[in-house]
Amino acid sequence: MRIALDGMGGDYAPGAIVAGAVEAAKQYHDVKIVLVGDQALLRTELEKYPNAEKSITVHHAGSFVRMDESAALAIRKKKDASVAVCADLAKEGVVDAIVTAGHTGAAVVASTLKLRMLEGIERPGIGILLPTLGTPTLLIDVGATIDTKPIHLYQYAIMGDVYFRYILRKNRPSIGILNIGEEATKGTEYVKEAHQLLNNSKLHFIGNVEGRDIFNGRVDIVVCDGFVGNVVLKVSESIADVISKLLKRELKRNPMTILGAMLARPAFNALKKEVDYSEYGGAPLLGIDGTCIISHGSSNARAIKNAIRVASEFVKYEINNHILEAVRASKE
Amino acid sequence: MRIALDGMGGDYAPGAIVAGAVEAAKQYHDVKIVLVGDQALLRTELEKYPNAEKSITVHHAGSFVRMDESAALAIRKKKDASVAVCADLAKEGVVDAIVTAGHTGAAVVASTLKLRMLEGIERPGIGILLPTLGTPTLLIDVGATIDTKPIHLYQYAIMGDVYFRYILRKNRPSIGILNIGEEATKGTEYVKEAHQLLNNSKLHFIGNVEGRDIFNGRVDIVVCDGFVGNVVLKVSESIADVISKLLKRELKRNPMTILGAMLARPAFNALKKEVDYSEYGGAPLLGIDGTCIISHGSSNARAIKNAIRVASEFVKYEINNHILEAVRASKE
Repeated sequence: MRIALDGMGGDYAPGAIVAGAVEAAKQYHDVKIVLVGDQALLRTELEKYPNAEKSITVHHAGSFVRMDESAALAIRKKKDASVAVCADLAKEGVVDAIVTAGHTGAAVVASTLKLRMLEGIERPGIGILLPTLGTPTLLIDVGATIDTKPIHLYQYAIMGDVYFRYILRKNRPSIGILNIGEEATKGTEYVKEAHQLLNNSKLHFIGNVEGRDIFNGRVDIVVCDGFVGNVVLKVSESIADVISKLLKRELKRNPMTILGAMLARPAFNALKKEVDYSEYGGAPLLGIDGTCIISHGSSNARAIKNAIRVASEFVKYEINNHILEAVRASKE
Repeated sequence: MRIALDGMGGDYAPGAIVAGAVEAAKQYHDVKIVLVGDQALLRTELEKYPNAEKSITVHHAGSFVRMDESAALAIRKKKDASVAVCADLAKEGVVDAIVTAGHTGAAVVASTLKLRMLEGIERPGIGILLPTLGTPTLLIDVGATIDTKPIHLYQYAIMGDVYFRYILRKNRPSIGILNIGEEATKGTEYVKEAHQLLNNSKLHFIGNVEGRDIFNGRVDIVVCDGFVGNVVLKVSESIADVISKLLKRELKRNPMTILGAMLARPAFNALKKEVDYSEYGGAPLLGIDGTCIISHGSSNARAIKNAIRVASEFVKYEINNHILEAVRASKE
C-alpha cells in the first residue's frame, strides 16, 4: 500500500511530518510512504534519520497552500501545491491514499475536484473521533460542507455507520442528529427533514441529540452541518486548553497545591493522553472516491504516524466499497 | 423594584428557587420578590425560612410548563402556567422584571408574545456570559431564535454592546461574528452579509472569530444564530463536566495521586468557582420590551440570587432605553 503524505502541511511541517513518516514506516511494514513537497527540504529532513526505512520516497511539489489562502483559489492557481500533487498521485493510481495536516479546505477542494465523489454521495463530510466518558464519538461533518441539506446529513449517517462498523468494529452503532432539543419537532427545517429520512432508514437512529451528548458517550455517531461541527470542534479544543491553563494558574497559588500538583502529575498526564487528538490519528474525508485523511494542523510526529495508520485501515478495510454498498442498499 | 420569580421552573424548583429568593431579599433591599406558582407549595417552602424578609410575596399560578412540552403549544394552552403569569404581571406593570429557571423556550415565547419586541428590534436573543482566560465573553444568541437573518446578528451586536457598556462597564467592547474562519469571505451567506452590516457600523467590530475565540478571552461579544449558540453552550458545559470526571477517575488510580488531589483541592475548588455558571447569574433575553432573565435549568439558590441581581441591574441601568437609543442611532 502506498500513501502520499503532504510534507508541507501543518504548523510543524516539514519536521514533524517527516518524523511521523519515519515512525510510521518503521511500525507499519505494509505501507510505503511518498513524501510530497519541496524535495530539497524534505530530503534534508529525511537525512536526519540515517536508519529510516528505505521505502520512504520523496515526490517533488513546487509550492504549497498557505493557511491564510482561499482554498478554491489556491487549488485552481497552484497546480504544483503539495496537497494538489498528493491528490494527483491518488487520481493517477500511484498512491492508494493521501494524508495531510495542511489547509483543511484545500484538502477538501483538491480531493473533491480530482478524485470526485463516490457514486450516490452528494457531499463530502469530515468525520472526527472525539474522546468521551465512554467510547469515542464520531462527529460528521466538521467543516467540509457548509450549505448542508437533509440528504447530506442522511448520507453522513450512512458513511459514519460503515466507518464505525469496519474501523471501530462495532455493529449497529447508534446515530443521532445534533439539534437544540431531543423532540422531533425541534430545530431548523433541514434538521427536521433529516430526522424523517433517518427515521425511515434501517440505521440505528436514536433521534436528536444535544450538544452535551457529543462528549458524554451516549451516542456513537453524531451528524451535523459542517458549520456547526467546525464550531463545536474548535470550541471543544479551546475549552480543554482553557481549563488546563486555569487549573495550572490555580495550582501555582501556594506550596501545598504545588506539591499536590506534582504528586498528581501522572493523573494529569493520563488525562492529557486520553483527550489528546494525536492518539486518534486523522479524520477521514468521507464521501470522496479515494482516501484522504486530514490530520490536525498542529500535528506532531505521533499524530502523523496515527493518521497514516488510519489511512491504511481505510484502504485495507475497503471503507469506500462498503459505503457504495450501503448507499445502494439505502435506495432499495 | 419588583421582580416576578418563576417558583416552578428549574430542576430544583420550588426548593432552590425559594431559597434563592430568600437570599436575594436579604441581600438586595431595593428588590421586592413576587414568587409565582402553586401557592400552597411556595408558602410551605417559604415557611422553612422564619426570618425571610416580609417583602417576599406569593402570587398563585395554577400550572407550569414541563421541560418536555412544546413551548408555543404550552403557552397557548396553559394560560395559568407560572412563566405565563410572570409575563402577565410584567405586562400589567405589576412587576419590573421576570426571572425563570424553567423551560427556556416557554420563557422566550411568553415574553415575546406578552411583552412584545422593543421598537426596531426584530428578534430576541439570549445573551450569556461565559468564563474565559481573561474577562467573560458575552455570547448572543444561545437559543431564542433559530431562523436567524443577517439583520438579527447585527441587532444582537447592538444590544450586546449596550449590555456590556452598562452592566460590565467597558467602553467600546469588541464584537465578533462566530464563523468557521477569520476571512470575510468565509462561512455561510447570512454570516457574510452580517459581516458587511457590522463592518459598516460604528460598533467596535473585529471581524469573524472562530469557536476557539469564545473562551480564550480574545473578544468581548460573540454573535451567532441561536442554533449554533445553543450547541456551543451545551457542548461547553458538558466538556467541563467530562474533563472533571475523567480527571477524578485518573486521580483515584494510586495513593500518590490521591494525596496529590487532596493537597490540590483548593485549586480545584477555585477553578470550579471560576467556571461556575451560578456565579454569573442569569442570561438576559435581549430585545423584548421588558426584562426577562433566564437562569440555568439546574440553578441552585446562589444562581437564582444572582439572576435576581442581574434582573435588578438590567432595570436600574435602563438597558432597554439604551438599546432603543442605540438602534435609532444605528439607523441615522
